[in-house]
Amino acid sequence: MFRRELAVRTTGRGFIELTKDVASAVGASGVADGLCNVFVPHTSASLLAGENWDPSVRRDLETFMSRLAPDGDPGYEHGAEGPDDMPAHIRTMLTQSSMVIPVAGGKPQLGTWQGIYLWEHRTAAHERRVLVTVW
Amino acid sequence: MFRRELAVRTTGRGFIELTKDVASAVGASGVADGLCNVFVPHTSASLLAGENWDPSVRRDLETFMSRLAPDGDPGYEHGAEGPDDMPAHIRTMLTQSSMVIPVAGGKPQLGTWQGIYLWEHRTAAHERRVLVTVW
Amino acid sequence: MFRRELAVRTTGRGFIELTKDVASAVGASGVADGLCNVFVPHTSASLLAGENWDPSVRRDLETFMSRLAPDGDPGYEHGAEGPDDMPAHIRTMLTQSSMVIPVAGGKPQLGTWQGIYLWEHRTAAHERRVLVTVW
Repeated sequence: MFRRELAVRTTGRGFIELTKDVASAVGASGVADGLCNVFVPHTSASLLAGENWDPSVRRDLETFMSRLAPDGDPGYEHGAEGPDDMPAHIRTMLTQSSMVIPVAGGKPQLGTWQGIYLWEHRTAAHERRVLVTVW
Repeated sequence: MFRRELAVRTTGRGFIELTKDVASAVGASGVADGLCNVFVPHTSASLLAGENWDPSVRRDLETFMSRLAPDGDPGYEHGAEGPDDMPAHIRTMLTQSSMVIPVAGGKPQLGTWQGIYLWEHRTAAHERRVLVTVW
Repeated sequence: MFRRELAVRTTGRGFIELTKDVASAVGASGVADGLCNVFVPHTSASLLAGENWDPSVRRDLETFMSRLAPDGDPGYEHGAEGPDDMPAHIRTMLTQSSMVIPVAGGKPQLGTWQGIYLWEHRTAAHERRVLVTVW
């Protein structure tokens, strides 16, 4: 079992592609056929296995989430860290914090148009950790 | 570690039950006690672990998603493949691409009323791949 | 591979923290470095990896879900078990039934403010099972 911790500096709300970092960890593990777990130990950033070709897909996902869970919604009780605090928790709840991807031939078996992204849900920059485990 | 790839021909938007296929892969693996990963390498089809008794549940899930992310929404930028293109990515983002199920006695430990479904989110038929790994 | 089944008595809709139970299962497994799967074999209760400090976050998640999938919505066909029946399936579909958490130093590597919760989506009390597997 091989583990690598990624340190990701986000620049506020948006997507940071991790596909190459995950593939690199899988390569370094020496595992030819197995599985790979990606885990985000945060509650206001999460994972997306999403379309990796057209950036407009990710802009539309962002638009969708902004409409579904708007910042500054007066219906929320919790807002200690600002108007994007509670929406960030909602977005995390609706997406994934943990994902398992098959490995074959020493590579993650993602689809042709499928990339792995860290989705920062806070509007300010954050230091995020991502744990990659291969077995 | 045992892997089987399922080829699933969808007939447009809707659910295709994979419960028996997953159980069959678990049986073929020879694993008595372990775990099973189901992974969908697509960004407009996903997995549901959902109620397997009354088909109206799945019709209502479909109704819910159609209301939440309607086809042809003018708010989306991305629509190269048609009005159901971006809603399919949203539905995938809100559900799961990867799932891990415990195995005991050579069988997936799903609940009595819990089935595994591939959810096709595009309105046209597609050829989908599903990777099942047992260990 | 170590497995423990948790029996959880819910008191109706709401969250029950499982963080200590998961940590206890990991401790009992004797696994120092590995992974842990948490699985819910139900279709109207699910898992949340969410903020564990301020209870208002969980109240707001509940508020969000109640608005997104209101009980007694006349648009649903399925309601054999009451007005909260179909919303409970929707909430389960939008969250997780299965989660994999890295283990290091004999402990689940959750974030500082990240807890694991069982989310009961039915309004009545239920007996729920949760399967924890460590390897």
